[in-house]
Amino acid sequence: MKIGFIGLGNMGAPMVRNLLKAGHAVSAFDVNPAAMGALVADGANAAASPAAAVADAEYVITMLPAAAHVHAVLTADDGVLASVASGVTIIDSSTIDPASVKTFAALAAARGNAFVDAPVSGGTGGAAAGTLTFMVGGSALQYDRVKPVLSAMGKNIVHCGDTGTGQVAKICNNLVLGIAMAGVAEAMSLGEALGIDPHVLAKIMNTSTARCWSSDTYNPFPGVIETAPSSRGYAGGFGTDLMLKDLGLATDAAKSVHQPAFMGALAQQLYQAMSSRGDGRLDFSAVIKLYRGDR
Amino acid sequence: MKIGFIGLGNMGAPMVRNLLKAGHAVSAFDVNPAAMGALVADGANAAASPAAAVADAEYVITMLPAAAHVHAVLTADDGVLASVASGVTIIDSSTIDPASVKTFAALAAARGNAFVDAPVSGGTGGAAAGTLTFMVGGSALQYDRVKPVLSAMGKNIVHCGDTGTGQVAKICNNLVLGIAMAGVAEAMSLGEALGIDPHVLAKIMNTSTARCWSSDTYNPFPGVIETAPSSRGYAGGFGTDLMLKDLGLATDAAKSVHQPAFMGALAQQLYQAMSSRGDGRLDFSAVIKLYRGDR
Amino acid sequence: MKIGFIGLGNMGAPMVRNLLKAGHAVSAFDVNPAAMGALVADGANAAASPAAAVADAEYVITMLPAAAHVHAVLTADDGVLASVASGVTIIDSSTIDPASVKTFAALAAARGNAFVDAPVSGGTGGAAAGTLTFMVGGSALQYDRVKPVLSAMGKNIVHCGDTGTGQVAKICNNLVLGIAMAGVAEAMSLGEALGIDPHVLAKIMNTSTARCWSSDTYNPFPGVIETAPSSRGYAGGFGTDLMLKDLGLATDAAKSVHQPAFMGALAQQLYQAMSSRGDGRLDFSAVIKLYRGDR
Amino acid sequence: MKIGFIGLGNMGAPMVRNLLKAGHAVSAFDVNPAAMGALVADGANAAASPAAAVADAEYVITMLPAAAHVHAVLTADDGVLASVASGVTIIDSSTIDPASVKTFAALAAARGNAFVDAPVSGGTGGAAAGTLTFMVGGSALQYDRVKPVLSAMGKNIVHCGDTGTGQVAKICNNLVLGIAMAGVAEAMSLGEALGIDPHVLAKIMNTSTARCWSSDTYNPFPGVIETAPSSRGYAGGFGTDLMLKDLGLATDAAKSVHQPAFMGALAQQLYQAMSSRGDGRLDFSAVIKLYRGDR
Repeated sequence: MKIGFIGLGNMGAPMVRNLLKAGHAVSAFDVNPAAMGALVADGANAAASPAAAVADAEYVITMLPAAAHVHAVLTADDGVLASVASGVTIIDSSTIDPASVKTFAALAAARGNAFVDAPVSGGTGGAAAGTLTFMVGGSALQYDRVKPVLSAMGKNIVHCGDTGTGQVAKICNNLVLGIAMAGVAEAMSLGEALGIDPHVLAKIMNTSTARCWSSDTYNPFPGVIETAPSSRGYAGGFGTDLMLKDLGLATDAAKSVHQPAFMGALAQQLYQAMSSRGDGRLDFSAVIKLYRGDR
Repeated sequence: MKIGFIGLGNMGAPMVRNLLKAGHAVSAFDVNPAAMGALVADGANAAASPAAAVADAEYVITMLPAAAHVHAVLTADDGVLASVASGVTIIDSSTIDPASVKTFAALAAARGNAFVDAPVSGGTGGAAAGTLTFMVGGSALQYDRVKPVLSAMGKNIVHCGDTGTGQVAKICNNLVLGIAMAGVAEAMSLGEALGIDPHVLAKIMNTSTARCWSSDTYNPFPGVIETAPSSRGYAGGFGTDLMLKDLGLATDAAKSVHQPAFMGALAQQLYQAMSSRGDGRLDFSAVIKLYRGDR
Repeated sequence: MKIGFIGLGNMGAPMVRNLLKAGHAVSAFDVNPAAMGALVADGANAAASPAAAVADAEYVITMLPAAAHVHAVLTADDGVLASVASGVTIIDSSTIDPASVKTFAALAAARGNAFVDAPVSGGTGGAAAGTLTFMVGGSALQYDRVKPVLSAMGKNIVHCGDTGTGQVAKICNNLVLGIAMAGVAEAMSLGEALGIDPHVLAKIMNTSTARCWSSDTYNPFPGVIETAPSSRGYAGGFGTDLMLKDLGLATDAAKSVHQPAFMGALAQQLYQAMSSRGDGRLDFSAVIKLYRGDR
Repeated sequence: MKIGFIGLGNMGAPMVRNLLKAGHAVSAFDVNPAAMGALVADGANAAASPAAAVADAEYVITMLPAAAHVHAVLTADDGVLASVASGVTIIDSSTIDPASVKTFAALAAARGNAFVDAPVSGGTGGAAAGTLTFMVGGSALQYDRVKPVLSAMGKNIVHCGDTGTGQVAKICNNLVLGIAMAGVAEAMSLGEALGIDPHVLAKIMNTSTARCWSSDTYNPFPGVIETAPSSRGYAGGFGTDLMLKDLGLATDAAKSVHQPAFMGALAQQLYQAMSSRGDGRLDFSAVIKLYRGDR
């Protein structure tokens, strides 16, 4: 397939490499020329603009930081919608708010294009290994159409429902994640202060009703899970500032549907406190420092 | 073994039955005579006081609502410490604060008795089926001594560390549980309002980083897990008022070690709001009503 | 003076009336023709568009619901910037985020116009009586220029600092207000439940360190302050949904400067809970219902 | 009058001095002999026990850290109730929970004594100057009886209602205080980050709906109020650990009447975070450091 790909950051670049490995032809664009140069060696074509990247594409994929960037890439004079052929499906793997998805889908529909939201989980590791999970929002037909392409970059391609529900799934998942991690951090720190061995505490929680990914796979207490960021100084992993962005999307989405988000809003402030003290790049499990200090 | 058992409520009574089934001789006491009568038919001896129940016991087990009751049962004129033989181990399966455990252990030690904390998880169902988990705080020697007796009532007998750590494990586990459940409730309700099918959302969360017992086993959204209280009007299960008690123990324990408990304190207020509106007996997953109303 | 006025809602309409009373000539525009009709009888000119309203204006005043409306009114083809004369000062009395103020000021500056933020406090009562407080953001020169015009509509014209600081003052003020009201509601309800006469409690708080506008002027407990909305079924006053909007601006502003907003974010969820249950139009002091129920 | 006074700490000692100045005879006791020695020079009699201090007293006054101390001082073998004459009124100026007040009043009544709660506000400064406010819980008769004695130590002697309501007034007042201070800290810090002059912001808030004691008298931003602890490095004033104690009483009291305390519970965690980082002795307005860091 001929694929136009916009956004070659930490996620986009390895995704393009996996598309190339699978035999697709990729015409790529990024505002940073260096990002394009690195991919040309791997077989990608460096495009001069979003419009150029998608001019003869059969699929368009965007992977951008926020809704404002997606809007610009779609609607600029040299943007995607200026040159993409009618009937081509645009897949947006950025994490953005569901309302913007609907706006973009309407813009695309006016040009005869489908716009499918397909945010990912799995991080830069999953992007490199081609094991991402894609949460796809669109009709059954659209899902069938994008699945083969996404399969070159991911392991699980999940159909979430209509347009926008891919983002809803991502946001709701990360809302629980941000809350549960703060909760596990609070409990592990409390247990330590009350004199239980953190390894023993984690083991008990992991076989009981406190069992969760934030405890059994990604425990924030150093040394409990050897492969977790907490065991390497909270380096790598899923950055606090990224969690902060996702909780912002969640609380904004709650506001948009007139629901309170008690737990999410508080968790958001805790990660904000971490970011404010200069720890925004640490893995989000470093939130335990608010309880334990820098031990 | 000859066992003196004090406290024959919803948990204590089935625990006694399992001890009897295992061939132990049980002398039982409760302030409610009817509770004793029901067990006599099963082979228990009804004692006239805690002192009488434990007079010739080789083990003492207490299962009471709160620390004040344990204190009274131990220290009353006709209490356990007034008649129990030196060297007998007292096992307290109540859920109480770790500081009280240490006080009671000192009182018992002064009389030549070990006091072992062994709170349970598994609820009334686990008590009836003999599949409770016991979280045991005490020395390795004490653990070895109580394990055979507890095995008649439970499946997992976990050694948590020194005296009091059984309560610490219980409290920290339920702290995470109360937080995670409120978080899952918030996310499921948000997802519904944003238009994703709750069954699809739960399925995605359960295979991703939001995975937790509160979502994959006990999801608060009606119909998602057929066996969960949410699918039967939040009847049965683990009552909101019990969760409220445990979160109270957790936030009090945090206060005692001078740590904040941001997430736990907020979750506590949410369950309190449920209890205040008259829903304290509903399963704690009914907290989702704060987001969804009574749909 | 010749004044172009855009936005004739509950606030804008009485503001225009006061300008007319002071002898100014007002050319007014609103998307709702009925709103214009009502003012023509009072002497205003009904304009066909924002551009028409400001074509020969010496001052422009906008009073709109949100930043998106201000943006549209400024930049539309028939908008303010399309026809306003160079050198004319644009005064925006809407409550919007400080970042948008800076964007709009830059747009205006590019056309040779000053853009001054001047949000108000005092509500519809103050607008009708001409006793509003205006919080003005702009240079000292700009402040001097707008003060005479604003004085026709308000009693206190406060210079807050450079462009945007009028909004900062408004947002920070209402952040404290929303928090303090929720706090007073919590305490008054607690006091009632603990058996103190609410009138006595309020009297003590009002002469002690709990003294605040939310207690001594606008107490949320019915009957304590006869003139407060709480004493007339929470009708009128400052609506919950308006407080919700302002706390949204405050928490968003905190996010923009990477600060946590623990108390504001929680208060926001409480007002959101009120709005969700259908009480968004009640005065914001009705938040006490979350504690007292509907008594 | 002959007065037995128990508890000679930072508050009790200056209160005794004012009683002596007013011509009362004071027999004083404290567990710390040095505290008694310092008062003997001022004319007090140093008693060997609470019982000795009150043996021939016409009034008893207690000023102790917590309910457990009051309980011990009342009921010990050499305690107040062991020797106080029937008919003597016991005035407790400690800040404790209302439920304990009722327990103590019942114990006293069984001995023929009235027990009146009369907690204070005004701090060590007010204690020294004799300008404390006393919040009195008891019958009208009891109030009339204690007022002359309390007037030697305070300026405002307020009758709050029946036994326990003095504590209720104190707790509810400080609940609002702790919340409002955290709110003002959040807003002042936000305003600073958004670029408004903190002096201007405070001035606006103090003449608008954010007006409160925490802003206009005790503003947490350094330099805004010259006499506030914030302007002298948060030294002196009302310590964070004392605010923490009072918010603990408030949230516990809310729990006892089955009400949520959303705002109070969160504020409590913020002061706890301050205490945990070693700032428990700083004035409670130092909570602004959680937002501004140590600037």
